[in-house]
Amino acid sequence: MITENILPHLCIMNAEIITIGDELLIGQVVDTNSAWMAQRLNEAGVRVVRKQTVGDVPEQMAEVIKAALNRSDIVLLTGGLGPTKDDKTRDVLCAIYDCGLVVDGQTLARMEAYFTARNRVLIDTNRDQANVPDKCTPIPNHHGTAPGMWFDENGKILVSMPGVPYEMKAMMDEFVIPRLRNQFALPEVVHQNLITMGIPESHLSDLLSKWESELPARYRLAYLPAPGIVRLRLSCYDAGMHDASAMTELMDGLATLVQPYLFSRGDSTPEQAIGEMLRIRNQTLSVAESCTGGYVSHLITTVPGSSIWYLGSSVSYDNEVKSTFLGVDANIISTKGAVSEEVARAMAEGIRTKLKTTWSIATTGVAGPGGGTPEKPVGTVWIALSGPFGTHAKMFRFGDNRLRNIQMTTLMSLKMLRDAITESGSL
Amino acid sequence: MITENILPHLCIMNAEIITIGDELLIGQVVDTNSAWMAQRLNEAGVRVVRKQTVGDVPEQMAEVIKAALNRSDIVLLTGGLGPTKDDKTRDVLCAIYDCGLVVDGQTLARMEAYFTARNRVLIDTNRDQANVPDKCTPIPNHHGTAPGMWFDENGKILVSMPGVPYEMKAMMDEFVIPRLRNQFALPEVVHQNLITMGIPESHLSDLLSKWESELPARYRLAYLPAPGIVRLRLSCYDAGMHDASAMTELMDGLATLVQPYLFSRGDSTPEQAIGEMLRIRNQTLSVAESCTGGYVSHLITTVPGSSIWYLGSSVSYDNEVKSTFLGVDANIISTKGAVSEEVARAMAEGIRTKLKTTWSIATTGVAGPGGGTPEKPVGTVWIALSGPFGTHAKMFRFGDNRLRNIQMTTLMSLKMLRDAITESGSL
Repeated sequence: MITENILPHLCIMNAEIITIGDELLIGQVVDTNSAWMAQRLNEAGVRVVRKQTVGDVPEQMAEVIKAALNRSDIVLLTGGLGPTKDDKTRDVLCAIYDCGLVVDGQTLARMEAYFTARNRVLIDTNRDQANVPDKCTPIPNHHGTAPGMWFDENGKILVSMPGVPYEMKAMMDEFVIPRLRNQFALPEVVHQNLITMGIPESHLSDLLSKWESELPARYRLAYLPAPGIVRLRLSCYDAGMHDASAMTELMDGLATLVQPYLFSRGDSTPEQAIGEMLRIRNQTLSVAESCTGGYVSHLITTVPGSSIWYLGSSVSYDNEVKSTFLGVDANIISTKGAVSEEVARAMAEGIRTKLKTTWSIATTGVAGPGGGTPEKPVGTVWIALSGPFGTHAKMFRFGDNRLRNIQMTTLMSLKMLRDAITESGSL
Repeated sequence: MITENILPHLCIMNAEIITIGDELLIGQVVDTNSAWMAQRLNEAGVRVVRKQTVGDVPEQMAEVIKAALNRSDIVLLTGGLGPTKDDKTRDVLCAIYDCGLVVDGQTLARMEAYFTARNRVLIDTNRDQANVPDKCTPIPNHHGTAPGMWFDENGKILVSMPGVPYEMKAMMDEFVIPRLRNQFALPEVVHQNLITMGIPESHLSDLLSKWESELPARYRLAYLPAPGIVRLRLSCYDAGMHDASAMTELMDGLATLVQPYLFSRGDSTPEQAIGEMLRIRNQTLSVAESCTGGYVSHLITTVPGSSIWYLGSSVSYDNEVKSTFLGVDANIISTKGAVSEEVARAMAEGIRTKLKTTWSIATTGVAGPGGGTPEKPVGTVWIALSGPFGTHAKMFRFGDNRLRNIQMTTLMSLKMLRDAITESGSL
């Protein structure tokens, strides 16, 4: 977090984001716009201090917008610019800025060309969208009909944009961010990331509290937990020329401190990091899944280009399938149980032999809610890893939430693979 | 949207949602919690009038919370309950309600049991999380450490919950919604759902506009789009004794109108609906995935008890694996290409024979971003379905977004299976 007391000499501009629309208040739509806008603003050195969502109610919209203009330097609105009678943003802004409407010739011409090219008639409802408040600078909309609006009054900037994500994003990148950078001396902000796995946020914060307290004033460490991982982000505000290397040094220190839990450095996801490790080593991977039910494979194949280093998987929910696909001895399953070190190892070795890969992962466990026993309660999982050095397996006890067990098993299997690749030596 | 003019005689309670956390303001995390909470509140007949996000800054948190308590009947908070020094919600609430902390014995006992079961040490940082403001009713957290807090003062309810989605969701479903229903005479709201697939929201709304406009005044149809599906939710506000059957009749009419796109009726997800269809028929399923990379299997195995009707899958990213696992003739792959009707059919038949299941699904396609050709551009997918009636395959052209292609292929394969099961006759 950036707080005044950390950077007393720096004048960081404050921004607020207001999203407008009844659909956001009934939970019909998840608001992904504001997170995206916040990222862009933060990258540009603008601090977002508040986000708000209101319905299509003019009085509430006006109240929220005025309060935001009072508190902050920049106010970004999305939504309420459509052609229907539910869309009231423009009228509210005319009232706030005490102004009337004028035709924006450029927008009207663009609209006419757009409709002509599609053999569609420009009806009055659309034509009206080319009218903009006479106190704003219209922002061209290259992907839709409603123009954006840029107001600059009393040292406060207000920008109104459509709620359609790709229309808004184009306006932000092509117009809003460049204009903010141009008009204001925004501070340079630089971020570096690393991912930890296998340590809860609370323990991590204990481990790092001394290091954190000794950080120079303009650095800031953020803990960004997601299921199974904690991403650590170091930010440098008001970064100068030499800060990139100073930051890398700080990150080296951080990486050493969290070494046993370190998954990867940089902006990658765990699966992207694994892919990159395998790709540069010309190595390949196969997976034998039981309790993870395909999730390891899914996560891996979300990575573009994964077909270069990932060959295939078996998902054997049924015990017989473990024998059919992987040649696991049915006797081992019946004597040791499907959730056992022996079966995990046999699965990993079976798939690695069959698909001829450098590495293989196998998972077998009790995901729940059913299937638990006193010795093997729900959440008991064996993960095996097979590779050039041989095969090893580890038992875990996760919780009683099925989805979380699937997720945790998947992430821990990637961590085991990551550690094995690292231990197997550098290039 | 529920507006006053639709239900003038009804007194609906107003709620606000406040999400707390710097991570939400820097755009690191997309807030999915508030949309989910808004849905649950709306289902219970509570109207959400505003959503806000603030950072971990006590003064701002206090200001926003007090303003919300002034305006609305119910205020729900998430976030800021973690064990680190960034987490300030509890202190802010102590200040607002002018109270101190007491140990919540139940939470402490639960925490000790949780840590002991996982062989982990309960450190002071965690122990402190069991302290709660003495004016609140603690809400048990069955999936994590921080308890929730329920305040009831001056006729206003404030609920504070962790920001971790599954911890918050469990508290909402197990404690908050039932207690709100219990304490207040919320209008009786009844909902019935159906899921459509393969028709965009705008076309659906054209198709249904006449039907919608003829609905009795206290009924309301909501379109809830998610990737690949649109859920239609019919709600009856202020429902009386006879509304359940009247509603079922309305839903019958709706189902007939959307028949070609109908996936399932009821509250199930597509994969739950498939599971239920197979379970009651005593039938089984296997999957041969290529371009979906494990996502079909993953979705299926998120359903508790899926091991009864789902046996296993192969994920064959590499062409050779299609032969190794499924016995697909390498000649077909080399002459027709991996993305072809012939290979899709051979994959489906291969896995069905090998795992001896009633049904099988196979997917092969170009997920992208690489791998497209002029005849088979990115987004080209073949899905094959094999069952007691034989095998059939269908080609689709999705878009150029890898994740969306994986998702759309998975959902369309479930739709093909659903249609085949339905056509194969009732029980």
